[in-house]
Amino acid sequence: MKILVLQGPNLNLLGERKPEVYGLTGLPELQKYISEYFKKIEISFFQSNHEGEIIDQLHAARGKYDGVVLNAGALTHYSYAIRDAIESIAVPVVEVHISNVHNREEFRRQSVIAPVCLGSVSGFGIYSYILGIQAVAHQLKDGRQV
Amino acid sequence: MKILVLQGPNLNLLGERKPEVYGLTGLPELQKYISEYFKKIEISFFQSNHEGEIIDQLHAARGKYDGVVLNAGALTHYSYAIRDAIESIAVPVVEVHISNVHNREEFRRQSVIAPVCLGSVSGFGIYSYILGIQAVAHQLKDGRQV
Amino acid sequence: MKILVLQGPNLNLLGERKPEVYGLTGLPELQKYISEYFKKIEISFFQSNHEGEIIDQLHAARGKYDGVVLNAGALTHYSYAIRDAIESIAVPVVEVHISNVHNREEFRRQSVIAPVCLGSVSGFGIYSYILGIQAVAHQLKDGRQV
Amino acid sequence: MKILVLQGPNLNLLGERKPEVYGLTGLPELQKYISEYFKKIEISFFQSNHEGEIIDQLHAARGKYDGVVLNAGALTHYSYAIRDAIESIAVPVVEVHISNVHNREEFRRQSVIAPVCLGSVSGFGIYSYILGIQAVAHQLKDGRQV
Amino acid sequence: MKILVLQGPNLNLLGERKPEVYGLTGLPELQKYISEYFKKIEISFFQSNHEGEIIDQLHAARGKYDGVVLNAGALTHYSYAIRDAIESIAVPVVEVHISNVHNREEFRRQSVIAPVCLGSVSGFGIYSYILGIQAVAHQLKDGRQV
Amino acid sequence: MKILVLQGPNLNLLGERKPEVYGLTGLPELQKYISEYFKKIEISFFQSNHEGEIIDQLHAARGKYDGVVLNAGALTHYSYAIRDAIESIAVPVVEVHISNVHNREEFRRQSVIAPVCLGSVSGFGIYSYILGIQAVAHQLKDGRQV
Amino acid sequence: MKILVLQGPNLNLLGERKPEVYGLTGLPELQKYISEYFKKIEISFFQSNHEGEIIDQLHAARGKYDGVVLNAGALTHYSYAIRDAIESIAVPVVEVHISNVHNREEFRRQSVIAPVCLGSVSGFGIYSYILGIQAVAHQLKDGRQV
Amino acid sequence: MKILVLQGPNLNLLGERKPEVYGLTGLPELQKYISEYFKKIEISFFQSNHEGEIIDQLHAARGKYDGVVLNAGALTHYSYAIRDAIESIAVPVVEVHISNVHNREEFRRQSVIAPVCLGSVSGFGIYSYILGIQAVAHQLKDGRQV
Amino acid sequence: MKILVLQGPNLNLLGERKPEVYGLTGLPELQKYISEYFKKIEISFFQSNHEGEIIDQLHAARGKYDGVVLNAGALTHYSYAIRDAIESIAVPVVEVHISNVHNREEFRRQSVIAPVCLGSVSGFGIYSYILGIQAVAHQLKDGRQV
Amino acid sequence: MKILVLQGPNLNLLGERKPEVYGLTGLPELQKYISEYFKKIEISFFQSNHEGEIIDQLHAARGKYDGVVLNAGALTHYSYAIRDAIESIAVPVVEVHISNVHNREEFRRQSVIAPVCLGSVSGFGIYSYILGIQAVAHQLKDGRQV
Amino acid sequence: MKILVLQGPNLNLLGERKPEVYGLTGLPELQKYISEYFKKIEISFFQSNHEGEIIDQLHAARGKYDGVVLNAGALTHYSYAIRDAIESIAVPVVEVHISNVHNREEFRRQSVIAPVCLGSVSGFGIYSYILGIQAVAHQLKDGRQV
Amino acid sequence: MKILVLQGPNLNLLGERKPEVYGLTGLPELQKYISEYFKKIEISFFQSNHEGEIIDQLHAARGKYDGVVLNAGALTHYSYAIRDAIESIAVPVVEVHISNVHNREEFRRQSVIAPVCLGSVSGFGIYSYILGIQAVAHQLKDGRQV
Repeated sequence: MKILVLQGPNLNLLGERKPEVYGLTGLPELQKYISEYFKKIEISFFQSNHEGEIIDQLHAARGKYDGVVLNAGALTHYSYAIRDAIESIAVPVVEVHISNVHNREEFRRQSVIAPVCLGSVSGFGIYSYILGIQAVAHQLKDGRQV
Repeated sequence: MKILVLQGPNLNLLGERKPEVYGLTGLPELQKYISEYFKKIEISFFQSNHEGEIIDQLHAARGKYDGVVLNAGALTHYSYAIRDAIESIAVPVVEVHISNVHNREEFRRQSVIAPVCLGSVSGFGIYSYILGIQAVAHQLKDGRQV
Repeated sequence: MKILVLQGPNLNLLGERKPEVYGLTGLPELQKYISEYFKKIEISFFQSNHEGEIIDQLHAARGKYDGVVLNAGALTHYSYAIRDAIESIAVPVVEVHISNVHNREEFRRQSVIAPVCLGSVSGFGIYSYILGIQAVAHQLKDGRQV
Repeated sequence: MKILVLQGPNLNLLGERKPEVYGLTGLPELQKYISEYFKKIEISFFQSNHEGEIIDQLHAARGKYDGVVLNAGALTHYSYAIRDAIESIAVPVVEVHISNVHNREEFRRQSVIAPVCLGSVSGFGIYSYILGIQAVAHQLKDGRQV
Repeated sequence: MKILVLQGPNLNLLGERKPEVYGLTGLPELQKYISEYFKKIEISFFQSNHEGEIIDQLHAARGKYDGVVLNAGALTHYSYAIRDAIESIAVPVVEVHISNVHNREEFRRQSVIAPVCLGSVSGFGIYSYILGIQAVAHQLKDGRQV
Repeated sequence: MKILVLQGPNLNLLGERKPEVYGLTGLPELQKYISEYFKKIEISFFQSNHEGEIIDQLHAARGKYDGVVLNAGALTHYSYAIRDAIESIAVPVVEVHISNVHNREEFRRQSVIAPVCLGSVSGFGIYSYILGIQAVAHQLKDGRQV
Repeated sequence: MKILVLQGPNLNLLGERKPEVYGLTGLPELQKYISEYFKKIEISFFQSNHEGEIIDQLHAARGKYDGVVLNAGALTHYSYAIRDAIESIAVPVVEVHISNVHNREEFRRQSVIAPVCLGSVSGFGIYSYILGIQAVAHQLKDGRQV
Repeated sequence: MKILVLQGPNLNLLGERKPEVYGLTGLPELQKYISEYFKKIEISFFQSNHEGEIIDQLHAARGKYDGVVLNAGALTHYSYAIRDAIESIAVPVVEVHISNVHNREEFRRQSVIAPVCLGSVSGFGIYSYILGIQAVAHQLKDGRQV
Repeated sequence: MKILVLQGPNLNLLGERKPEVYGLTGLPELQKYISEYFKKIEISFFQSNHEGEIIDQLHAARGKYDGVVLNAGALTHYSYAIRDAIESIAVPVVEVHISNVHNREEFRRQSVIAPVCLGSVSGFGIYSYILGIQAVAHQLKDGRQV
Repeated sequence: MKILVLQGPNLNLLGERKPEVYGLTGLPELQKYISEYFKKIEISFFQSNHEGEIIDQLHAARGKYDGVVLNAGALTHYSYAIRDAIESIAVPVVEVHISNVHNREEFRRQSVIAPVCLGSVSGFGIYSYILGIQAVAHQLKDGRQV
Repeated sequence: MKILVLQGPNLNLLGERKPEVYGLTGLPELQKYISEYFKKIEISFFQSNHEGEIIDQLHAARGKYDGVVLNAGALTHYSYAIRDAIESIAVPVVEVHISNVHNREEFRRQSVIAPVCLGSVSGFGIYSYILGIQAVAHQLKDGRQV
Repeated sequence: MKILVLQGPNLNLLGERKPEVYGLTGLPELQKYISEYFKKIEISFFQSNHEGEIIDQLHAARGKYDGVVLNAGALTHYSYAIRDAIESIAVPVVEVHISNVHNREEFRRQSVIAPVCLGSVSGFGIYSYILGIQAVAHQLKDGRQV
């Protein structure tokens, strides 16, 4: 099973930016933590501050990854282009957020990508990624157990 | 570790209500599935169609449970009283939803309880409960790993 | 044919509350009037000021009644939980109101339950119940004659 | 007792237009069905796609009809001129709709004429007309039994 | 100097409709009152409940009348087609209302035609027409004395 | 008959401010023009840039003037205090505007004082004052001829 | 004179919940404090987390209490059913809040019950109850001294 | 192939009304220009200032025309009755506008008929009609080439 | 203890203005009533129709009064300048209203000064002032008993 | 004549993405179809998922192309930067869409670029491009024939 | 060159009011600081808590000052009368704010005067005044160097 | 002291784009003008039409520049990603605009980046940059002199 952890703008500053909200773990440590957590899943990482590259990666994921865990950063709130990209591909995408987006600024409460994702996980710090990957993996193994 | 899985209105009809959205698993099977999944966590269950009983249970959780996983059903969208109850207690609460609330009716996109929960999980069918319990358990063991 | 006339908050005060709007007929007389009007239909009555009990009754209606005529009182305007309950059961539900909800306070113009009911009747005083029961009965006998 | 069944734009296409919503009964059959249902009431029919003619008919109803049952079609949602016409005459008017206007497009939820009608009936297919006529007839015989 | 007094829906019921708002003077008396008030101005009258006829009359006013005094009735609030008609002709148009539209229902506060009229007069009963005609006549004689 | 022409902020700059909108006539000439127009009415004038003084003058008008013609300038759009002052006195007040407030900036379309005035006149340049005074005078002589 | 102090959801946690907002006094101490403050008034207390029980108590207050002081907690912001209950009974009801609801979350600024209460008191800590009882008592003794 | 070019209010004034927006070509020249452009298509024309007649023509188009090109004028922005008429017939309808409706007044940006048309063309002067007819013709010949 | 009772626009007309809302007591009697009620508190009074003077008085209250009871009249609803004045001084300010501002015009429901006041009292006629002074006095003696 | 067909995010997936909406034709076939359709026009193609590259291309179009046909994909709905780019260049730009953007999700109804384009074409499948190119070509040859 | 620094309500309390936002410098020190900074510009100062006096000063600035630097305090957010005053005079006006108005309360984000000022400076503490004066001086010397 | 002048989309077209708004000075001349103005400050320049590159530059500014002056062009109005980037770095950022964004299109009035900038300068043509750099320099030398 191959999963892509895809991250949007400013997540390269993880560990430095607003540590009271986003924590002290930097991006390399986060990637190491995730990779070690899931020994049996092949996990790749990609981060970009460019909306276009996020879209390119989503397109490229077809046939290459079984699932995507996406933290689109602030693009979550206005990038209808990423929304369309998610909707355009057959690969399941899970939305994750480190912070609880619901108790911060008003604009963070709207996610324009949520309606086309499989589901969402937010508020558990970097553990949100762990849960997001589990969700994709579970979906790939068992389908949505409704 | 003791966790309460608390469920709001109409979740007693799980398995019967809109199976294309909520699946075919009934409430007793769901509870069995959860209990068996987490052998080492003591999990209790409570479901009610009454807002007041949800609040009473949240109050009673103080000192009795280490965490709560809450699917408040439709009360999610307007019960500021449940919001206040969550805010009033020191026990961490995680919001879960079976369906992806973001691609259904407009009113389901607003959660008045999300801002006072630890975090949210939605869209993964009954597996959302598994992830929600993991989130609480992780929080209780390690704190929020930011 | 068995029909449940289900009534929400404050309808126990019928005949006393705002008689210029709701009239002088009390709840017992209303029930007598309805029962005598429909000799061939078995009609039961339930009134509660508790949202949860309305939901419980809707659930219990499955297999027990052929149809429900519901005046949810003020819960009409915000109880998405009752909406979900109506949507969860296969029993047809008709919304009735004694007053013309469209020429009173602004908040009374919105019904969150209307979209999941079979149809609505409002503004004809207690005769609204007679029409509501006829509507359910007609639906049960002939289906919706579209 | 003389009642006018007044119908607005596109209702001449009944039976052809969106049969899954409006049914297969054409306008002539509908009129026949209504006339035969109420043997003792003298019922006239008028349909027009012109807002001005609906208004003219409402004015002409004074002294000619005891009541009006009005399905204003899409004019329901914006014709303040029809609203004023209803308010200008002493003849009671009941609003009817074939479909449940609350579970279709957003604009169909607003009725600008409802506040000045005696009451409303919607969602019961062509049986809505039967109920609307009963409502007017009841009002004329007994007044609003509040 | 030739002026057209153009009136929209329901103004044919003047004197009968809501006399506490619109007064007891009927349309013929109103026309007589206006004609006698302005001995030196040739005044014509036209009333219709049809939006299309109001537009036709506005078009026909070109070359036939020097000015128009328009009470568009409820069409004031939504007829962008009448707005376009006023904007399309070179004849000055003054908007008049019998009642003070600002202390009645909310929808009466918006006039979609006001922005393309020369000016507006409202709230002075049938005397509003006298003022409206004076305004047009003054404009025609002296231009806008800014 | 004694009438007060009361003017709000920036109307002292009449003739200088935006002449393409407000004209070239200065305040003294305007006052002379009005006084000479109405030989038989005793007209006083007051202008202030201070909301409080407008209110004081409205209060002082009781017992001193038979009517008030008010151009409140930009205070028209937000001074609920002036609104309350108008509502507090028995003297009839007519709202006038030089320009057509409906085809300028959006904020000029709302008048918070219109609902408590007898009526409104706008768009006819300084001739709006002439019409406003006529309206008050007519009201005082004949009452509202509805 | 008999007065009921009626309290809604989460007020049983007084003294524990957000003490920086709601203070350190618990519900029993609050009740003792109130009872001792008003030696000559017979004061009863009722608290519930259930909307339906608040309504039941308001109904039961008829003939049993002379006035009600109500802190409806978060139900203040959405319970139109409680609003209808207050409007349905002849007993005067005063709304009180411990905190200044106007400088907290946006949703706390709207009270759906305020329009049907005698008046409101908020922001003075538990002393708000003292003032609320005085207000009811004054009303009962002297009527509203307008 | 038979196509109807259907035009709404004020389009009879083409060439006279706001020539900087709508051009100098009159309606007869426009019709001549269109007819000569499409030698092989039988094109009919109808213009009316009456909403009802537009609806009547749309109904009559069934069985008589293969497609309709509709410039509904200002009715575009509020006539839900025309919308329903379009939706009621099987004949494909294309919406055209002479001007770019998006860079004019705010109300011109909303088209209530667009959702039920095949597609829209706007902003190309009278050439918009040529494109609209081509679009219908292409649809009729090849179907929508998606 | 020295307290200033500060009153805004139109409160000088108390007893004359809308007596069904504001009562028959004039301002001098109100001041006498208040002074006699609180024998042990030194109470001063100031009323102005000028926003600027209200602000000046609030500033002057520093070091001169221990508390302020403020009925800002209609300025309550839009004077952000008074809001800033209250926030700028250390003297506690209590907002009072004679009428229940929540069951009148929509604009009266918003108070822009409430968020920076200690608390609010409204709806009890002139007794609201008594309660407001008690609230300030209690605060000064005991602090907010939270 | 040289025309650039410029395409935004996700249009590289044409033929694969939501074929029921966007059809089965892939981007290369689309380009071939367009090129062969217009033998006498030199047509270039550019597609990018990067907003910045769309802007760069629009800038580069100056002096290189006579016109641009732009399908900005989802950027249509929020990219004010592309809007400014279109406004910054003298080259005429036509907006095209494959689907009827008016009968899909609400957000697709707003185009922030439409006000600065020459005109818009939407809803005709890939034939929209043909019409868009014709529109630009017509504009370049004959100017806007108003 | 003569410049007027004009200040609105509560700015007389500078140095005392919310020092964490507005700093510790009092108004006299601010004026001294500004005067000393610009040795070659003749700078006058005026502060008032009265909207009317701000307007009077703006009017008086004509012919007396070459430019105005205006901190209108809270009047910034609602005084359309000041807006009109600025628009009425030929003297250039620059808007300044001490704090960053964009990261405080929502109402501070709207400036009703900004559209008629030359430009705006905000967020740099008292240095905002220095920049504002420079901006006016630059404009007067070189015109807007666009 | 090292300052970066960072510019967003379309600013490379300065001097060509809408010269009546943005002036005739091209980007190279602007840079020369700025560099020569501030002899003692080391100023670098970067312009891009790509949101991602603006973000990359902001990140890279850490440790390399002491301050940033940012004209984000149209991205000002929707790029929450740039907002997060500014918030993520410790380098002070000042927002500048050439035109007065408040008297142009509605969308230009909202700046999503303003709340996280030190302050804003707009409306002074290219002199806005001079003021913006002065503001940053002052902040770096003296801190915010509040």
